[in-house]
Amino acid sequence: MADPKVLILMGSDSDLAIMEETARVLDEFGVPFAMHISSAHRSPAKTSKLAHEAAGRGVQLIIAAAGMAAHLAGVIAAETTLPVIAVPMPGGALNGVDALYAMVQMPGGIPVATMAIGKAGAKNAGLFAVQILSLSNPELRDKFVSYKDKMAEEVERKDQELQASRQG
Amino acid sequence: MADPKVLILMGSDSDLAIMEETARVLDEFGVPFAMHISSAHRSPAKTSKLAHEAAGRGVQLIIAAAGMAAHLAGVIAAETTLPVIAVPMPGGALNGVDALYAMVQMPGGIPVATMAIGKAGAKNAGLFAVQILSLSNPELRDKFVSYKDKMAEEVERKDQELQASRQG
Amino acid sequence: MADPKVLILMGSDSDLAIMEETARVLDEFGVPFAMHISSAHRSPAKTSKLAHEAAGRGVQLIIAAAGMAAHLAGVIAAETTLPVIAVPMPGGALNGVDALYAMVQMPGGIPVATMAIGKAGAKNAGLFAVQILSLSNPELRDKFVSYKDKMAEEVERKDQELQASRQG
Amino acid sequence: MADPKVLILMGSDSDLAIMEETARVLDEFGVPFAMHISSAHRSPAKTSKLAHEAAGRGVQLIIAAAGMAAHLAGVIAAETTLPVIAVPMPGGALNGVDALYAMVQMPGGIPVATMAIGKAGAKNAGLFAVQILSLSNPELRDKFVSYKDKMAEEVERKDQELQASRQG
Amino acid sequence: MADPKVLILMGSDSDLAIMEETARVLDEFGVPFAMHISSAHRSPAKTSKLAHEAAGRGVQLIIAAAGMAAHLAGVIAAETTLPVIAVPMPGGALNGVDALYAMVQMPGGIPVATMAIGKAGAKNAGLFAVQILSLSNPELRDKFVSYKDKMAEEVERKDQELQASRQG
Amino acid sequence: MADPKVLILMGSDSDLAIMEETARVLDEFGVPFAMHISSAHRSPAKTSKLAHEAAGRGVQLIIAAAGMAAHLAGVIAAETTLPVIAVPMPGGALNGVDALYAMVQMPGGIPVATMAIGKAGAKNAGLFAVQILSLSNPELRDKFVSYKDKMAEEVERKDQELQASRQG
Amino acid sequence: MADPKVLILMGSDSDLAIMEETARVLDEFGVPFAMHISSAHRSPAKTSKLAHEAAGRGVQLIIAAAGMAAHLAGVIAAETTLPVIAVPMPGGALNGVDALYAMVQMPGGIPVATMAIGKAGAKNAGLFAVQILSLSNPELRDKFVSYKDKMAEEVERKDQELQASRQG
Amino acid sequence: MADPKVLILMGSDSDLAIMEETARVLDEFGVPFAMHISSAHRSPAKTSKLAHEAAGRGVQLIIAAAGMAAHLAGVIAAETTLPVIAVPMPGGALNGVDALYAMVQMPGGIPVATMAIGKAGAKNAGLFAVQILSLSNPELRDKFVSYKDKMAEEVERKDQELQASRQG
Repeated sequence: MADPKVLILMGSDSDLAIMEETARVLDEFGVPFAMHISSAHRSPAKTSKLAHEAAGRGVQLIIAAAGMAAHLAGVIAAETTLPVIAVPMPGGALNGVDALYAMVQMPGGIPVATMAIGKAGAKNAGLFAVQILSLSNPELRDKFVSYKDKMAEEVERKDQELQASRQG
Repeated sequence: MADPKVLILMGSDSDLAIMEETARVLDEFGVPFAMHISSAHRSPAKTSKLAHEAAGRGVQLIIAAAGMAAHLAGVIAAETTLPVIAVPMPGGALNGVDALYAMVQMPGGIPVATMAIGKAGAKNAGLFAVQILSLSNPELRDKFVSYKDKMAEEVERKDQELQASRQG
Repeated sequence: MADPKVLILMGSDSDLAIMEETARVLDEFGVPFAMHISSAHRSPAKTSKLAHEAAGRGVQLIIAAAGMAAHLAGVIAAETTLPVIAVPMPGGALNGVDALYAMVQMPGGIPVATMAIGKAGAKNAGLFAVQILSLSNPELRDKFVSYKDKMAEEVERKDQELQASRQG
Repeated sequence: MADPKVLILMGSDSDLAIMEETARVLDEFGVPFAMHISSAHRSPAKTSKLAHEAAGRGVQLIIAAAGMAAHLAGVIAAETTLPVIAVPMPGGALNGVDALYAMVQMPGGIPVATMAIGKAGAKNAGLFAVQILSLSNPELRDKFVSYKDKMAEEVERKDQELQASRQG
Repeated sequence: MADPKVLILMGSDSDLAIMEETARVLDEFGVPFAMHISSAHRSPAKTSKLAHEAAGRGVQLIIAAAGMAAHLAGVIAAETTLPVIAVPMPGGALNGVDALYAMVQMPGGIPVATMAIGKAGAKNAGLFAVQILSLSNPELRDKFVSYKDKMAEEVERKDQELQASRQG
Repeated sequence: MADPKVLILMGSDSDLAIMEETARVLDEFGVPFAMHISSAHRSPAKTSKLAHEAAGRGVQLIIAAAGMAAHLAGVIAAETTLPVIAVPMPGGALNGVDALYAMVQMPGGIPVATMAIGKAGAKNAGLFAVQILSLSNPELRDKFVSYKDKMAEEVERKDQELQASRQG
Repeated sequence: MADPKVLILMGSDSDLAIMEETARVLDEFGVPFAMHISSAHRSPAKTSKLAHEAAGRGVQLIIAAAGMAAHLAGVIAAETTLPVIAVPMPGGALNGVDALYAMVQMPGGIPVATMAIGKAGAKNAGLFAVQILSLSNPELRDKFVSYKDKMAEEVERKDQELQASRQG
Repeated sequence: MADPKVLILMGSDSDLAIMEETARVLDEFGVPFAMHISSAHRSPAKTSKLAHEAAGRGVQLIIAAAGMAAHLAGVIAAETTLPVIAVPMPGGALNGVDALYAMVQMPGGIPVATMAIGKAGAKNAGLFAVQILSLSNPELRDKFVSYKDKMAEEVERKDQELQASRQG
C-alpha cells in the first residue's frame, strides 16, 4: 500500500459508520490514507504519538472525528503543524451541537477546519482533503473537476426524472 | 509557603480576573494553592507537565478554567488521576455556552466536574475544593459550616434591610 | 454490607436505568454505596432527611440525578456540607438541556459538580466519586490507575481490530 | 398594614430592581403583600419557613423570582399548596434562559406558573395575582377591567401621536 | 353536568392525547370543565367567542394548549379577565421550544401562566387550576393536600421497592 | 395623500425606531402606506378592526412588527386574506429569538412571511412589499431593478476604496 | 399545460416528499406551476439559469426549499426581482434550525420571505403564493376566502366530534 | 506586488475590522494575498467572477467572511475547485450563530472549512492558509514551527509574570 497522505483519526469505534464516508471519498479519488481509533481522553499517549509522527510518515493532513466534548481535533492541532480538519459526531443528548462548538470555536493561534455534523461533514472532510492535495497534484484536481461535473449532472438527471414523473 | 493542595490552571491571562474569585475563596479558607497560566493548545507540553507532576507535588485536586472550545480540563483529566474541576469562561460570540458544552459533555471514562459559567462558577470551584479537602480535614469542614451559616445570616440581614426600607 | 461511602439519589424511578451505570462503576471499584429514590418536589421531607443524615452515616459524597427543572442536586447541596455531584437526565421535550442548565448554573456559594447529560454522566459520576475517595485511599487510587490503563488498552485493541479488518 | 394576600420572594437583593415592578402593580391595585429576600440555596431553612407559614398568614399566592439555576419557585411549590408564580431573572452568561428552563420545566405533580424573563414577567406576575384574587373579589375584577381598558386607550393615544407626527 | 369551572381549549385535535392529562386531573378532583378545539388562526371568531363568553358561563380560569407559533393562550388572555394557563405542545422541528417561547414571553400587561412542554405541563395545568380553585373551596384544598401526600407516599413506595430489589 | 397600498402595524411605539427602515424604503420607492401602533394583546379590538378594514381601503399587503411572544402578524393573518409580512423585533432577554419563533413557525393554513430580526428585516419587509407590488406595476419593477443595480455598484465602490487604501 | 405562475425549486430530491404539500395547495387552487430540483451548491449554473429565466417565462414568484446551510433561496433572490419564498427543510443533526437561520436572517437589501420548517411551511408557501396572486385575480381571492371558511368549519366539526365523544 | 496566493473576500465593508486579523497573519508570514469586498447577495456577478478567476490568477485558497445568513463561502465553493475557508461574522440579533450554521452545515459534496466566530476565527483562517501553503513550502513551514514555539513561550512568559506578581 502507498504511504498515507491523509490520517483519519476517530475518538471511538462507534464513529466508524460515519467516518467510512470519508474513507469512501478518499478511495474514490485514489488518495492513500491511514485510519486509526484513538481517544484524546482515554488514550492521550497514543493520540499524541500519532499526531507527532504523522508529518514524518508523509502525511499531508489529518482528519479528526469525535463527539460530545470533542477535543480530539484540537489536541492534535496543538501537536502538529499539519492542517487538521474536524468532523463533529452526532449522538448524545445534544446530538452534535456540543461537538460542533467544541471543535469550531478554537481560540486564536491553533486552527481547526470544521465540517458539518455527521455524514455530510464526513464526506466533505474527504473532499476538502482532495482539494488541498489537488493544489500540488493536477491529476487529482482534474478528478475533482469531474466529480463536481458529475454532481451537477446527477442533479440534472434527478430533475429530469421529476419532470417525467409529473408528466407521466 | 505551604505545599499547594490545589492547582488552578487557566488557559489565558485574560481568565485571571474571573479566576481570582477561586483564589480568594481558597485564601479565605487557608487552603494553599498554586496558580498557573497554561494553554491546552498553545503550550501543550507545559500543560501536560503540570498535569503529570501535580500528584507528586502533593496537589489533591486541579481546577481548570478556559473559554471557547475549552479543552484544558479534559486534557488534564486525561493525564492525571486527581479530580479535575472545570470553570467555563464567558466571552466570545457564544458567551460561554461553547466552553460549557466543551467541558461538561465529557464522554464516559474521563470525568470533569463542571461549575457555572463565569464568576459564580469560579467561586464555587473554590468552595467545592474546600468540600473535598474537608473530607479528611475536620477543621476545614468546621470553617465550611461557618461559611454556610454566614451566607444564611447575610441573606437574613439583606431581608431585614428590605423590611426596614419598605416600612421607613 | 459495609457502610455506604456514596449516596446516590434520583428524582424518579425512571432514572434508574441510567443511574445503574453509576452503581456498576462503584461496584466495580468496591465502593459501598446506598441508592434511593427521592424527589426534591414530590417528597421534599424525605429528600431533606436523606441530605441531613448522610454525613452522620459516614457518607463522603452524594450523587444526585434528576431531569427537566432538576432541583434535586441544588436542594441537597443547600442542606449538606458534603460534595454533591449532579447528573442531568435526558428525556422530555428539551432532552436534558433543561436539567443541565438547572444543575450546572448554580449561583455562587453552593457548588454542584455537574457531569454530562445521561449515561456518560452517570458513569463519570461514579468515577469522579472514586477519584475523590482515592485521595485518602491509595489502594483505590491504584485501581483507578489500572482502570485508566485498561481504557487505553481497550482503545488500542479496537484500533488493531480496525487495522486488521481493513487489511483482511 | 393589612394582612398580605401575596408573598413576593426573591433569591437575592440583586433581583429587587426588577421585582419592584411586581410591587408597583400590587400597590396600584391595592393588594396587600409582603416581600422577602430568601434563597433556596443559601437560606433553605428561612425559605422553607416562609413557604410553610404563608397559608396560615392568609397569603393566597406566592410569587418567586430567581436567576441562573432558579430553584426558589420549585422548592416553595414543594412545600405549600398555594399557587406559585415564577419570574425568571435575566443576567449571567445565559441571560435568563437557564432560569426560565429551571422554572417552567417542572415535572408533573408540582406546578409552577412561569412568566416572561425579567421586567415584563415581574409586571405580569403582579397582574396574574390580581386576576386570581379577582375571582372572589368583584371590586378588584372591575379595577382589572379598567386597567385593560386603559392599556387599550394608551395604545390608541400612542397611535394618534404617531399619526400626528407623520402629518405634521 | 355541573357548570364548568375550567375551560380547556386546544388549537388542534392532535393536541387531545396530551390534554387528556389535564382532563384526568380535573376529573380526579371533581372539578367540572368544558373542553373545546378552537384555533387562534383557523377559527379566530370561535376562539374569540369562547373567550368572551367564558366568564358569563361561570368559568373561573382557562387552560390553552397549542404548538409551534402558539398564539392561542395570548389571544384568549387579550379578550378575557380570567386567568389563562398555557401548555406548550411538543412536536414539529423545534419540538415545543417555539411554543414555549410564544407563550411564556408575553409582553407586560397581558399575563399568561406557562407550564412545562407536553404531558408534564398538561398535568400541572390541571393541578394549578385546582390550586387556584382551592383558594375559595376548602374541600378541594383538602383533596390537594391528600394528593401531595399520596405523591410523597408513592415516591416512598418506589424507593422501598428499589431497596428490596437491591437486597434480594 | 394617496390611498395606502401597504399597512405597517407595530405592537408598541418602541418598535418605531426600527420600523422607520420600512417606511424609508416605501417612501424611496414612492409606495403610499399607512403606519399604526396596535397591539394584539393590549388593543385586540383595534388590531382586529385594522385587519378587517385593510382590504376595503385598497391595502395590498400588511407588514406586522412585534417583539417577545410576537402574536401580531399571526392574529392579523387570521383575520384577512391579504399577504402578511412579519418583522421580529430584537430586545428582551432572548433578543428576538422568541419573536422569530413566534412569527415564523405558523401552523399550516395561515401563512406569515417572516423577515430577519431587527433593522435588516424591517428594510427587507419594505423591499419585499415593493417586489409584490411590482408584479402588477412595471414602473415599480424598473425602480427595483435600478435599486439592485445600485446596491451592486455600492459594493463595487466600497471594494475600490479598499483597494485604494491598501495601495496608498 | 398553462404557463407556470409559480416556480418551485428544491435543493435535493429528498425534499420532494415535503414540497409536494406546496404542489397540492397550488393544484387545489388551480395555480399552474413548475417544479425543479436544482442545488445552489451542486448545480449553480442550472440554478442561476432557472432564476434568470423565470420572469421571462411569466413566473410571478419563486418558492425555494433547502436544508442545512440552505443557500438556495438567497442565491435565487440575488439573481431575480421576483418575490422569493423560502421553506427550511428539517433533517440533519440540527433538524432545520440551521436551514431556518440560513434563510430568514438575510441581510438588508435582498429579502427572502421565510415560512415554518417542514410540512407546515411547505403548505403555507403555497397559500402565500395564492395570496399574492389573488391581489390581481379576484376569482382566486374568492377561492382563498372559501378555503379559510372551510378551515374554520373543519375546526368546528372536529370540536363537535370531541363534544359528542365526551358525552357518549 | 507578488501574485496573491490567498484571496480574502468579505460580504460587507463592516467585516473589515475583523478580517484585518487575517491580513495581519498573512503579512506576518509573508504570504501575498488580495482582499476584496463582494456580496453573494448584492453583487453576485462580481462574486462569481472573483471565484472563477481565482485559480487562474495563481490563488491557492479563498477565505470568505460573512454574517447573518452567510452564503458567501458556500456560493464561492460552488464555483471553484480551490479550498474555501469560512469565517462567520458576529453581530446582529443572533450574534453569529446564524452565520456559523449557514457556513458550517454545508451539505455533502461542497466542503467549506469553518473557523470560530469573529476575531479568533479570522486569525485562524490566516494560520490555516499558512498551514496549507506550508505543505509545498518548507520555508513557510519552518516559520509556522517558530510561530507555534513563540506562542508557547508567550504563555510561559505570562505565567512567569503571574508567579512574580503573586510572590511580590
